[in-house]
Amino acid sequence: MNETVQTAVIGVTGYAGAELARLLLHHPHLQSKPPVFAGRVDARDAERGGVPLGEIHPELANSHGSGKLVQQPFSWELLEDLGVEVLFMATPHEQSRQWAPEALKRGIKVIDLSGAWRLNEAENRAVYGFEDEGSAIAVTTQAEAVYGMPELFRKQIATARLIANPGCYATSVILPLKPLASAGLLDLERGIVADSKSGVSGAGKAATAKTHYMYAADNLSAYGVFGHRHTGELLEQIGLEREQIVFTPHLLPIPRGILSTIYVHFKTPQTKANVMHVYREFFAGSPMVRLYDNALPQIQYSVRTGYCDIGVQLDAGGKRAVIVSCLDNLLKGAASQAVQNLNVVEGWSEAEGLE
Amino acid sequence: MNETVQTAVIGVTGYAGAELARLLLHHPHLQSKPPVFAGRVDARDAERGGVPLGEIHPELANSHGSGKLVQQPFSWELLEDLGVEVLFMATPHEQSRQWAPEALKRGIKVIDLSGAWRLNEAENRAVYGFEDEGSAIAVTTQAEAVYGMPELFRKQIATARLIANPGCYATSVILPLKPLASAGLLDLERGIVADSKSGVSGAGKAATAKTHYMYAADNLSAYGVFGHRHTGELLEQIGLEREQIVFTPHLLPIPRGILSTIYVHFKTPQTKANVMHVYREFFAGSPMVRLYDNALPQIQYSVRTGYCDIGVQLDAGGKRAVIVSCLDNLLKGAASQAVQNLNVVEGWSEAEGLE
Amino acid sequence: MNETVQTAVIGVTGYAGAELARLLLHHPHLQSKPPVFAGRVDARDAERGGVPLGEIHPELANSHGSGKLVQQPFSWELLEDLGVEVLFMATPHEQSRQWAPEALKRGIKVIDLSGAWRLNEAENRAVYGFEDEGSAIAVTTQAEAVYGMPELFRKQIATARLIANPGCYATSVILPLKPLASAGLLDLERGIVADSKSGVSGAGKAATAKTHYMYAADNLSAYGVFGHRHTGELLEQIGLEREQIVFTPHLLPIPRGILSTIYVHFKTPQTKANVMHVYREFFAGSPMVRLYDNALPQIQYSVRTGYCDIGVQLDAGGKRAVIVSCLDNLLKGAASQAVQNLNVVEGWSEAEGLE
Amino acid sequence: MNETVQTAVIGVTGYAGAELARLLLHHPHLQSKPPVFAGRVDARDAERGGVPLGEIHPELANSHGSGKLVQQPFSWELLEDLGVEVLFMATPHEQSRQWAPEALKRGIKVIDLSGAWRLNEAENRAVYGFEDEGSAIAVTTQAEAVYGMPELFRKQIATARLIANPGCYATSVILPLKPLASAGLLDLERGIVADSKSGVSGAGKAATAKTHYMYAADNLSAYGVFGHRHTGELLEQIGLEREQIVFTPHLLPIPRGILSTIYVHFKTPQTKANVMHVYREFFAGSPMVRLYDNALPQIQYSVRTGYCDIGVQLDAGGKRAVIVSCLDNLLKGAASQAVQNLNVVEGWSEAEGLE
Repeated sequence: MNETVQTAVIGVTGYAGAELARLLLHHPHLQSKPPVFAGRVDARDAERGGVPLGEIHPELANSHGSGKLVQQPFSWELLEDLGVEVLFMATPHEQSRQWAPEALKRGIKVIDLSGAWRLNEAENRAVYGFEDEGSAIAVTTQAEAVYGMPELFRKQIATARLIANPGCYATSVILPLKPLASAGLLDLERGIVADSKSGVSGAGKAATAKTHYMYAADNLSAYGVFGHRHTGELLEQIGLEREQIVFTPHLLPIPRGILSTIYVHFKTPQTKANVMHVYREFFAGSPMVRLYDNALPQIQYSVRTGYCDIGVQLDAGGKRAVIVSCLDNLLKGAASQAVQNLNVVEGWSEAEGLE
Repeated sequence: MNETVQTAVIGVTGYAGAELARLLLHHPHLQSKPPVFAGRVDARDAERGGVPLGEIHPELANSHGSGKLVQQPFSWELLEDLGVEVLFMATPHEQSRQWAPEALKRGIKVIDLSGAWRLNEAENRAVYGFEDEGSAIAVTTQAEAVYGMPELFRKQIATARLIANPGCYATSVILPLKPLASAGLLDLERGIVADSKSGVSGAGKAATAKTHYMYAADNLSAYGVFGHRHTGELLEQIGLEREQIVFTPHLLPIPRGILSTIYVHFKTPQTKANVMHVYREFFAGSPMVRLYDNALPQIQYSVRTGYCDIGVQLDAGGKRAVIVSCLDNLLKGAASQAVQNLNVVEGWSEAEGLE
Repeated sequence: MNETVQTAVIGVTGYAGAELARLLLHHPHLQSKPPVFAGRVDARDAERGGVPLGEIHPELANSHGSGKLVQQPFSWELLEDLGVEVLFMATPHEQSRQWAPEALKRGIKVIDLSGAWRLNEAENRAVYGFEDEGSAIAVTTQAEAVYGMPELFRKQIATARLIANPGCYATSVILPLKPLASAGLLDLERGIVADSKSGVSGAGKAATAKTHYMYAADNLSAYGVFGHRHTGELLEQIGLEREQIVFTPHLLPIPRGILSTIYVHFKTPQTKANVMHVYREFFAGSPMVRLYDNALPQIQYSVRTGYCDIGVQLDAGGKRAVIVSCLDNLLKGAASQAVQNLNVVEGWSEAEGLE
Repeated sequence: MNETVQTAVIGVTGYAGAELARLLLHHPHLQSKPPVFAGRVDARDAERGGVPLGEIHPELANSHGSGKLVQQPFSWELLEDLGVEVLFMATPHEQSRQWAPEALKRGIKVIDLSGAWRLNEAENRAVYGFEDEGSAIAVTTQAEAVYGMPELFRKQIATARLIANPGCYATSVILPLKPLASAGLLDLERGIVADSKSGVSGAGKAATAKTHYMYAADNLSAYGVFGHRHTGELLEQIGLEREQIVFTPHLLPIPRGILSTIYVHFKTPQTKANVMHVYREFFAGSPMVRLYDNALPQIQYSVRTGYCDIGVQLDAGGKRAVIVSCLDNLLKGAASQAVQNLNVVEGWSEAEGLE
């Protein structure tokens, strides 16, 4: 266990990047080695030594010593000069495909927040249309990527060089389903339905017809039906065939938060106590999952926290259950899960800097 | 077919009541016989001849001749004196249980917007805990109630004396499922999931912890899991056993609108063309259902209209489908469906006054 | 008075254009001569005879006979062939500067919803930076433009060929101030403050950083301080010097509606009865203004109506007043005021088609 | 300076109370002496030793060691037994009027978040209708109350026994105006306008017609015109006559945050540099005020922070200015300002526990 570590973030301009910046800047173990922010910076910006984060995210302005809050022009030399050991990439997946191998080659560990390295199966990756699909470097890199969900892969993450931080929707569906699947409780023949609803920050910072206030507000819409990119993560991590689950995302008229309503059949009748026991066993030692015994979680309880909240209700016969999970798509669905991974890598307490 | 008819509304103070008032006041066939508004009125209000609707619903103030826009103290004599032939009851179900039989006895037809007379099976009614359950008058009254969904029971509604206007959630689930169930396409063994989301007006006008802005805004919550009152309507009207469907309502942070995401398995592989053909046949002659061929409906398209919008997407194998339906909970889910029923009863065009 | 008239709309793709389409399609006098929708249409769209409005505004789909709901490629020949007599331009002001003179030359009356022809003073127009400023044609055209606020210029509008439909903010400030200014009540030396708040539809349909849901939602921001384009309309129509009023617009996290809070000093102490009397006199015969005697208007009362609502409260001494006005920025602030102008031009009832 | 201090909170069930609990639980100086939560607890609740905070505020559940997160039945003995030295009262003002003197008598310092002790002038207090107005104990108590705005009264707060934490609106108006008034820049004859807009949490946790989602959402309304209770704070703290300012609050459809748009006239023309210099001098050493040089603050920048943000824009002549201030009504408008006062009292860094 190191006392501290030099980190860097590429892509601090997006919503997840801002949350990551905020978390790292307050992380107890990083006070003596604040993170480096690097990225695309115009020539003019470069001249003045970078872009003050306060200009990118006004809500971060003045809140901290302003000297360190600058996004600098990215270069590998910069990272080397500063002795960066762990690189967070909050970048589009195309960029992560290119840069992650380069970072590994230079001996820098990578925690990648994009979808670039999450999927082991070529069939599941197809939806991304990676240009370098099948290339030697891509195959090698994928081979050493670890799916960055500490609740499932704590041990592997601890020694990983490349951590593929999970998708936000995927996190909200895998965490509540994995324990039940592992315990062999689920009747997969009858199929699982995951009906997920996400706030608009999940759609990213680009101004598009769908992120226009007039489109999102006072509205609800389903999208990506039978075709959302996160589906592959569900299949691989829960261990499902494609026809065993339907996953439908919806665009919710709120800034942030995901609620997934998940419908399962049990092989044999269960009691709620049973099911909660399975969850409790599975998540023993997992500080960022909260189990609800007497109620169902709601988006407002998990927003702006690093938790994934899980609750469950069974029907009278004990053969069917509705599971509700909630999390903040920018935190447990992105930035705080990334910090959780850093904590595991460094041997720190898993919840460090997340409360 | 009558040119016009004398109508009355009890319960104009709620959200659905306000929409009903608005629709009836603009109804082409009611211009010469504007509706009577009757209800609970204090002694002081009674003295001045009733409560101006503009005080109850400021948005209706000044919009029409103000003389007729008064809620008068309710009495059976009033209705008789004014020659009321059709009575809309936008009242709590306990009140509808008491008053609907009385109105029928007096020869007044009833269109009841509550849950009082929707359910034929005692088992399904149990959730309401009606005090008069099993009484002779309740049995007789229920026997002649017709479920007021014109797309299913147009013929029976035309001659009915008591019309039980459907629940808002129920409408959004029955309309998209009934055609497929009737056509025998559905594999009911594998179960149906109806994941519904409704705006806050569905929770009524009472100020409660759950209708507080701070509870509903920026939030999403599931409720009534495995126990919502509208479930019985789904079972009876679609023709399902209780274990063949799960219905989960959610409270959406918007004023109005329902979106239901419905998951079905087909007995044999279908094409989208197939399914749309079944819908088109079923809804031929149903002006208040809109089918979406090339997209899925969204809440914003149906809000403030009398339509139920339906769209569907199949998976690659044609064995599973996600159906999305949308409607305005206060209109097709309440007030405009009531007016649709009036139109059918009077032999007018079904969409009269609804565009 | 003509029984009907052939109208056309250019620019039906925006928010105000959609409202205009909806109003004209339901206008009692236009049932026999539905409006023509013309505009920019791609070659491919042109081939199929235009773009169905249901593709541009899904909420208009299926609601009407679909045959007439097509946006056709614009050409002057088209307008001539169809005998268009009144042209609504819901276009950017640059386009209105070019096309309005052309329409007038061809004997077509114009109701222009842009800021192109609203301002008489070159100084006030400067903020628009019109390219043709000062040209002969611009001078001539401006000279015959009438400011399209029927409550102020009913008589001039009736015979006008070019009507400059007022700005949304301007309408919400001029209507409550003009009666008091005309009556000589206001102490202009002490200055007027107009603090206005508008929903996001006022910012237009373009997806920009400021119309992104994440920027507008859960937020409030002031903009255009001391420099908003509508200021000139206030000066010219109320009759003020620039230093006599401050007008500050704010972006409100709601889809539509404007509320203006206006602060005035009176020359001599007034009573509320006094002030309401002045309003009542001024707005006698103005069906689209509603006065509030016992309360202040709120945005929710005027949204989706064609009204401008006005209420006022005086301080104890009667020397100061806070006036609150509300309207729907897309209706009384744009489309319904345009229809009101059409009604005046054609000699129809001013509120025709607006309730 | 003490290393730590024993604090207690009465009234942890409201919105401000929850924020206060959260801040105190994370306060670096209180880690060894966590705050005591006391309040109204039913007999049944008392039996089990109090109400777990996780039941009152589910978002606080599980986030901390649950043992300490219990609201206990209030009694003076409890406070004495636990050695409470500083008592936060997040209670209705009637209760604060009664209990604050009692606490002082027992040697406990009070930081009161209500309006009970903010006003020195009987005339300004009249709006509260205190039952004990004019009583000896009330007079004595008021005499030693210090207005708890550290930016104005840091020195007095340090030695105060009773601190009257300012109103949320008042804070947003006093902080931007006081420096300019103190510097003698303002032309008070021409009057000041403070047009304030607040999120719904400002209306409290009680479910009322005005906090109903359907009332607040998609709406904006002015209230308390010429009569809001915070007016007295403005007069006393800025040093104004009643006729020199108009203050109008509005209910904004967002959960939290206040934006005040303030209109002033200067006695002599100013430059922006001038004005910013005055601000910078005044707020030197005030870590919880952020000045905006190049833009205006927005609600989203200050929500969930302890800052009051201030920006200003002058007209061309330099005689008039629009000042915009933003803060979180539950933090700088209540809980974090209370913690700021604690920090001053204890001699800790003023921003301790607030970033």
